[in-house]
Amino acid sequence: MPAPSAARRAKGWPPSHPEIELALVKLYRLTGDRRRLALASYFVDERGRQPHYFTEEARARGEDPADFWARNYAYNQSHIPVREQTRMVGHAVRGMYLASGMADLAFELRDESLKRACEALWRDVTTAQMYVTGGLGPEASNEGFTEPYDLPNETAYAETCASVALAFWAHRMLHLDLDGAYADVMELALYNGALSGLSREGTHYFYANPLESRGQHRRWAWHLCPCCTMNVSRLVASIAGYAISASDDGVAFHLYGGFETTAEIGGFTVALRERSDYPWLGDVEIAIEPETPIAFDLKLRIPGWAQGAMASVNGAPVALAVERRYATLHRRWTRGDIVILHLPMPPERLYAHPKVRMDVGRVALRRGPLIYCVEETDHPGAAVQSLTLPRTADLAAEWRADLVGDGAMTLIGEGRRLQPADAEDALYTTTRPRLQAHKVTAIPYHLWANRETGSMQVWICEAVE
Amino acid sequence: MPAPSAARRAKGWPPSHPEIELALVKLYRLTGDRRRLALASYFVDERGRQPHYFTEEARARGEDPADFWARNYAYNQSHIPVREQTRMVGHAVRGMYLASGMADLAFELRDESLKRACEALWRDVTTAQMYVTGGLGPEASNEGFTEPYDLPNETAYAETCASVALAFWAHRMLHLDLDGAYADVMELALYNGALSGLSREGTHYFYANPLESRGQHRRWAWHLCPCCTMNVSRLVASIAGYAISASDDGVAFHLYGGFETTAEIGGFTVALRERSDYPWLGDVEIAIEPETPIAFDLKLRIPGWAQGAMASVNGAPVALAVERRYATLHRRWTRGDIVILHLPMPPERLYAHPKVRMDVGRVALRRGPLIYCVEETDHPGAAVQSLTLPRTADLAAEWRADLVGDGAMTLIGEGRRLQPADAEDALYTTTRPRLQAHKVTAIPYHLWANRETGSMQVWICEAVE
Repeated sequence: MPAPSAARRAKGWPPSHPEIELALVKLYRLTGDRRRLALASYFVDERGRQPHYFTEEARARGEDPADFWARNYAYNQSHIPVREQTRMVGHAVRGMYLASGMADLAFELRDESLKRACEALWRDVTTAQMYVTGGLGPEASNEGFTEPYDLPNETAYAETCASVALAFWAHRMLHLDLDGAYADVMELALYNGALSGLSREGTHYFYANPLESRGQHRRWAWHLCPCCTMNVSRLVASIAGYAISASDDGVAFHLYGGFETTAEIGGFTVALRERSDYPWLGDVEIAIEPETPIAFDLKLRIPGWAQGAMASVNGAPVALAVERRYATLHRRWTRGDIVILHLPMPPERLYAHPKVRMDVGRVALRRGPLIYCVEETDHPGAAVQSLTLPRTADLAAEWRADLVGDGAMTLIGEGRRLQPADAEDALYTTTRPRLQAHKVTAIPYHLWANRETGSMQVWICEAVE
Repeated sequence: MPAPSAARRAKGWPPSHPEIELALVKLYRLTGDRRRLALASYFVDERGRQPHYFTEEARARGEDPADFWARNYAYNQSHIPVREQTRMVGHAVRGMYLASGMADLAFELRDESLKRACEALWRDVTTAQMYVTGGLGPEASNEGFTEPYDLPNETAYAETCASVALAFWAHRMLHLDLDGAYADVMELALYNGALSGLSREGTHYFYANPLESRGQHRRWAWHLCPCCTMNVSRLVASIAGYAISASDDGVAFHLYGGFETTAEIGGFTVALRERSDYPWLGDVEIAIEPETPIAFDLKLRIPGWAQGAMASVNGAPVALAVERRYATLHRRWTRGDIVILHLPMPPERLYAHPKVRMDVGRVALRRGPLIYCVEETDHPGAAVQSLTLPRTADLAAEWRADLVGDGAMTLIGEGRRLQPADAEDALYTTTRPRLQAHKVTAIPYHLWANRETGSMQVWICEAVE
């Protein structure tokens, strides 16, 4: 088929690594020039079309298409047309950028079939291929996905960029549909899988973010392929852009954590000031300062993990009608109005789907949006993998001002440490290891590897005495 | 130092892959030519000597020694002199052959320092680096050892040859010291880590012997590097050579399983006929037929796993004085004497040392010398990794004539299968998976992957309801 090839070549080949699609949509939004949108759309729609453009491109270079190292176009999500894709495959960062571009285009073009493809891929990623930290892509060799529920912890690749880009995608899905399920994943990725890529000081970087370590993992000062380094730094610097969305009839709070901004609502400017110690505490105060009294929807995200959220307006409790994880407060807002939102943050135990074979019999800890882990420095004497957390053990949140710079909220529980069953230290015995009482201290996952070198684990064995 | 190099070169370089050392000792035993022994001794003693012979060899070839792909002489156990080695490192098969050669030389030369080195390495391997199957070498990249207690199950390399050679080494250690601890490991490796390399039909081969599988592992008809294929076939064909040892004052039974042989004891020929359904059953009958009545020690191995062994001679119970896992029956043996040995074989639960992080909260099953595993074909509907075996569950041995050709002894227990906690099939939830009663059927590890493709696991989660 020489004709389409010629037309394609004239247009240029879509990139192997989707990324420019987002930029083109941004450029369109800035300039209004629809050619940008058309090019992004072309790049997305070309994926998976036959004859395959990579094949043609290789031939045009005089190469054998079979020499492509990844052997399979699933690597860059171009094995089949994007609208037919229902399973996220291949290189994780490529996949996330492509999906983000698809969501952008679905939004701008009101393209329902593209939106449905996004939704199918979202369902696949979040119900079968995502680490509990919001990390994506278990495998180093393709920096990407393998098969559903294959989520090894110690060898997890979970590239920082993949979690950053998952936040991008989630943010775009949220604009397609104001559903807090998207915001929950966005927040999960931001505070855990992405943020762990950055050291507490902001000077060192993880490229891979495993969920278990023998202590061999340390952040680097730089990386030969410096995508994650700048990606996570930029994300942190631009976090306020993910917090709030405004529309003609109101404003939605997706994230909390101390933001000040102004929104244009129905032609009026509304100053918004949100104050909280989030994510350490779930008490949020929002001051609303419209330039003139104006009626609009204030939509407050009630995260999926927040059971029993409560709110008040100017001191008077209000009933929260939560729909798709957002509570809508509609009223005529006046300068000086104060909304108080309380999101309970009890320590929680999380369990993985039984198909995640690595996590059978194990528990992960969560409080608010933060996933926790245990580190050896808090449990000296042996690797943390020998700790267990009986499911009967209470968990308490405890602020530790001394921890990792500015302090952190820890989770404390009466755990156990496995001790050799016999004095001979035999490798295998018929006697169960002794379980010795041992206080377990968990810290937020994103703060790991900021102190002494040592073992780390997210999924803790949940043995009972 | 040109002088030693010249002398060395004149003598020839020791091999990178130890193996010929055993053959040289065998040749010496056959021929009495001590030059064979001297050469084996030279090869062993040269390892780790400075200047390093590999370095000199590389230079003699005009190569840069730093180009050696493994980067480190630990790969072939020549990083330090063998007598200084206390930790088994590098390529597992090389290590096992080297240690076997060392044990042979220690025996022939009555070399105490070499014997002590063997003992130190033995202690290291069997208390910190051996899979419960007798598999050795967790890592594929070096086909060998990594660090103590690093024994991942699904990615276990555990080359068939390494277990075969572990049996070689154990057999040699047993001749240095009649200690059943050596025989136990020899038997473990024979019946599990080595035998699993061979299909039930004897026509297909595993090179690697993982302890967990998603079903991706199948034996091959052949292998590009066909060491394991012939090694395990030869081992099976020569198994009788490992069963019995004779000396001037008696005979020792190391293995049971139906052997007929003759031994020269004190100048007389004694016919020995051992009959049993071992390893399925622990009842062993030994007929002793000396050419003339003669007094000698009959040493019967009482395996470490056999608690409460009993024996009789010509129907009369005898007390068993067990020393280092051998019971000695001394008497004047007459044609027609019958010894009956009963080795109890209850199903047992094995636990790994708490430092084996992969096996925390898990249990392996053993009966007699056999390690067991669970396979998906006996538990259809989901991967076996979602099975648990509460420690309160009774285990029963059950003969299954229909299983894998000749039938096999299975272990049956009332286990559980994890089911998703909620109908939504969420990837992570705050609700524990439901534990559904599920009969667990374990089969001998060496028989795995002989039926339908499916998941397999040796270390089962030991959750309690």
